[in-house]
Amino acid sequence: MASTGSSLFAARRSIEQVEEGAELAPKFDENGLIPVVTTDAESGEVLMHGYMNAEALEKTIATGEAHYWSRSRQALWHKGATSGLIQKVVEIRIDDDQDAVWLRCDVQGGASCHVGYRSCFFRSVPVGAPGGAPAKLNFEESEKVFDPKDVYGDAPNPTKL
Amino acid sequence: MASTGSSLFAARRSIEQVEEGAELAPKFDENGLIPVVTTDAESGEVLMHGYMNAEALEKTIATGEAHYWSRSRQALWHKGATSGLIQKVVEIRIDDDQDAVWLRCDVQGGASCHVGYRSCFFRSVPVGAPGGAPAKLNFEESEKVFDPKDVYGDAPNPTKL
Repeated sequence: MASTGSSLFAARRSIEQVEEGAELAPKFDENGLIPVVTTDAESGEVLMHGYMNAEALEKTIATGEAHYWSRSRQALWHKGATSGLIQKVVEIRIDDDQDAVWLRCDVQGGASCHVGYRSCFFRSVPVGAPGGAPAKLNFEESEKVFDPKDVYGDAPNPTKL
Repeated sequence: MASTGSSLFAARRSIEQVEEGAELAPKFDENGLIPVVTTDAESGEVLMHGYMNAEALEKTIATGEAHYWSRSRQALWHKGATSGLIQKVVEIRIDDDQDAVWLRCDVQGGASCHVGYRSCFFRSVPVGAPGGAPAKLNFEESEKVFDPKDVYGDAPNPTKL
């Protein structure tokens, strides 16, 4: 998946071009995906970690609304199409070697996590947790913003073991 | 790589346990890796996107200093061992399905990017960029924090085309 054929993306020709240049030349992995970090544009909180394929990145750039590739559903995913929790893109950043994307978003409804929390990262791992047993997570959000049953109904849970 | 054998990690037994439970049960991908978002604990800025294997996650939890798996060097990577830009971990978060990690760090020296910038995400992609040509990136940091030649010398550049 070296070339996507998209006119928004340049071919990757040199390390200098990719790292120091002004052309968007994203690198998609062997599955055609690039990882995406999404933060709340106001609070800076990391809301979720997802993936885009070329089409999702193109649509995000074109529309200003976050589109991802759902690995569990194997489908283009316009975030909020089901839940109403649309992510309006304030800024799109790309990293030095152009193999990761950072979206700063305004989130309508204030929540991004399908479990119902504001952020998907609602639990912390204690630094220095002793070995010999699984580390015990702390809940950093005290309550859910919405009830997933109300929002998603009987849609299959995306989490895979 | 379902089980790592680490005593810090629980086996993944059910979706409820993984999503709503208090046991650390991370999911490593087919290469034994989990993606990691690292933010500056003070500014909230996303500094880098990397990967950990089980050992890197264990060492990060145990030592409070960020360890990654370098895909380009195929080696455990104690961030800052070469550059001095150690990342002191303020908080470790894990996401709902436990397949992504968020590190909030204090960065000694104030920079995390091997190109010399504060953040690896030093360029933005304009929302609504017109098609027909590669999107033109904007530089969001005006100057480098350090000169990579001074810090890394002749070490090979990790960026791959």
